[in-house]
Amino acid sequence: MIYLDWAATALPQEDIITETLKKSFKYFANPSAKHFLGKEARAALEEARSEVAGLLNTSPENIIFTSGGTEGDYIPMLSLLSQPSTCSIAVSNIEHSAVREQAAAMKARGYKILQIPADKNGLISADAVLNTIDSDTAFVSVMAVNNETGAIQPIAEIGKALEEYSKGKRKIHFHTDAVQAIGKIPFELSKSAVHSASFSGHKIGAPRGIGFLYLTKNIESFIRGGGQEGGIRPGTENLAGILALAGCLKKYYTNLENYVLNAKKLMDFLIDELSAIEGISFIPAMRPQLRDSFSPWILHFAVKELAGEVLLRCLSDKGICISTGSACSSRKKVRPILESMKIDAKMQQNSVRVSIGPSTQKSELAEFLKILKETLKEFS
Amino acid sequence: MIYLDWAATALPQEDIITETLKKSFKYFANPSAKHFLGKEARAALEEARSEVAGLLNTSPENIIFTSGGTEGDYIPMLSLLSQPSTCSIAVSNIEHSAVREQAAAMKARGYKILQIPADKNGLISADAVLNTIDSDTAFVSVMAVNNETGAIQPIAEIGKALEEYSKGKRKIHFHTDAVQAIGKIPFELSKSAVHSASFSGHKIGAPRGIGFLYLTKNIESFIRGGGQEGGIRPGTENLAGILALAGCLKKYYTNLENYVLNAKKLMDFLIDELSAIEGISFIPAMRPQLRDSFSPWILHFAVKELAGEVLLRCLSDKGICISTGSACSSRKKVRPILESMKIDAKMQQNSVRVSIGPSTQKSELAEFLKILKETLKEFS
Repeated sequence: MIYLDWAATALPQEDIITETLKKSFKYFANPSAKHFLGKEARAALEEARSEVAGLLNTSPENIIFTSGGTEGDYIPMLSLLSQPSTCSIAVSNIEHSAVREQAAAMKARGYKILQIPADKNGLISADAVLNTIDSDTAFVSVMAVNNETGAIQPIAEIGKALEEYSKGKRKIHFHTDAVQAIGKIPFELSKSAVHSASFSGHKIGAPRGIGFLYLTKNIESFIRGGGQEGGIRPGTENLAGILALAGCLKKYYTNLENYVLNAKKLMDFLIDELSAIEGISFIPAMRPQLRDSFSPWILHFAVKELAGEVLLRCLSDKGICISTGSACSSRKKVRPILESMKIDAKMQQNSVRVSIGPSTQKSELAEFLKILKETLKEFS
Repeated sequence: MIYLDWAATALPQEDIITETLKKSFKYFANPSAKHFLGKEARAALEEARSEVAGLLNTSPENIIFTSGGTEGDYIPMLSLLSQPSTCSIAVSNIEHSAVREQAAAMKARGYKILQIPADKNGLISADAVLNTIDSDTAFVSVMAVNNETGAIQPIAEIGKALEEYSKGKRKIHFHTDAVQAIGKIPFELSKSAVHSASFSGHKIGAPRGIGFLYLTKNIESFIRGGGQEGGIRPGTENLAGILALAGCLKKYYTNLENYVLNAKKLMDFLIDELSAIEGISFIPAMRPQLRDSFSPWILHFAVKELAGEVLLRCLSDKGICISTGSACSSRKKVRPILESMKIDAKMQQNSVRVSIGPSTQKSELAEFLKILKETLKEFS
């Protein structure tokens, strides 16, 4: 088995998860309970929050634990519903469905949705953001690293541009889906004028069902309940998940430099080898020349005259796991991210994503390349 | 340690959780991924869904996995935002904060909130519901078992009354928060004309952060993303939690008759012993006479001249865990459920909740009663 679908979900960090689960059994009480067991559970929860905040170089009160990336994306946007009047919402046209589809739902409630265009490389510039927003814009969402192409967006620049634009005016909430960025690339949220960022634990080997929202702006959540997580995210806190997430994030942050260095080497190898195969086109075409603008963990390419779905299945039959894009979009035939990059329809259909992780071996990539070539031969 | 706060969270079923976690490591892939690992994860997920559906005597497509009770409460109510016009929402005045506070947020968006009054015993009648709703009502929420008093509401009767009322008119969505009911009392959701019901796994020993929404009505979720869970609840599925929830629910359902029988015996013992202590008042006062209308797992009472908070802390210092009400309301000074039952302010302040579980022993209750008496003496 060769697993090259890390962007969909990472291999679980079994040791950390198993150990933190045991700890969570000790702290099984409801962290809101006022008896000693509740207080102990609360202390364990707050310790994990401090640990995550420390890694992100921010204050513990800026870390809101959620059930994952989707929730971290919709809580800030839905908080607009707590405001008396509607506004316009500007979202990049390469957002994850958690942002894109939620914006579409907001449209039905009277919010104007503005599309921030990506260039042909799938990159969003600060100028594109400024040229899109209007005087009514209260919310901007641009993802930090695109989940399909790996494009790293200039979040700090965009934040700075929005801050300058907002001077003397109503502050625009700047949100970023940082699911493919945090723990994966050097990314200083606390220095980037971002008001909120979503993150999902299972992208770094924590269990599915846990994530956090980084939040530095005072918002009134529209999702209500028992007032947990500073009133932003109600519901009894998932302590086992939180402890595992803190542990996994610590491991990724501790090893970040090495992880990235290694990933870059592997990605260089993969790009160079793929470049030598006839009929392979990178998405975007400039990907080999723009390596520093892309995540070293994600690569998107198309195979001439072979549907991505078919290639995926052929490889799957041979024990190799890749994807045709976001797992979260796997139900849909459309490929909005590639469409917004003006990738032609045929190439969209023939495209696949390969994504690697910290335990990916060069030998696995070599084997993948070998089997890929064999498969292409079968279809030629 | 004597744990009598099961309504806040149950003791974890460590064996089931540990075993299902191991299974989840095997099925670590994203269930939406199209390669063989994704398909295997999907199959494990659907098997768990079928298991839960089977226990609830419903179809698998009616089970939507969520992150817990709060989400299961807000998804149906927020789906109203997907409709073009606003409406009135009728909620009982003894709802969990997940329903009560969410309704308050909807009010700010133009929805009219109607309060269905409980009687002095904390019970909601079908007539009270019919007398509250108006021609504009599209949503009714009445919880199945109250989390503070244990009052069992006549959900089947209310459902039937709403169904008859709706004949030839727009169907009213009938939601019930069943967090304290499912697996705890004989409760046939599938026979009760309920359109949706929320449930939380940690109330039956599954991990915190997993639950499900029982949903038989076609709704358009306002929460959007990758289209998981039939488009109702987006986000990568928490497979470890789902497998654990299915396992724990199976255990509770398999043993339900015995569990309830045993709980009733323990509760009878507790009520009888407390009745003999001077200065103890049950909430509601008729609780000893209305045993069949109340959950055998939950008991609420007040102690004359002693604040509930003080009693809780004294007992906690002696290793006993009880609560002053819902853990989810522990941040608030107000006690809306008791207020709606017209319990006087002093008694509200002096009230505490004792809640038991399947592993509670009679000897633990005897020890609790002994220490309670000693504590009351200290304050007399």
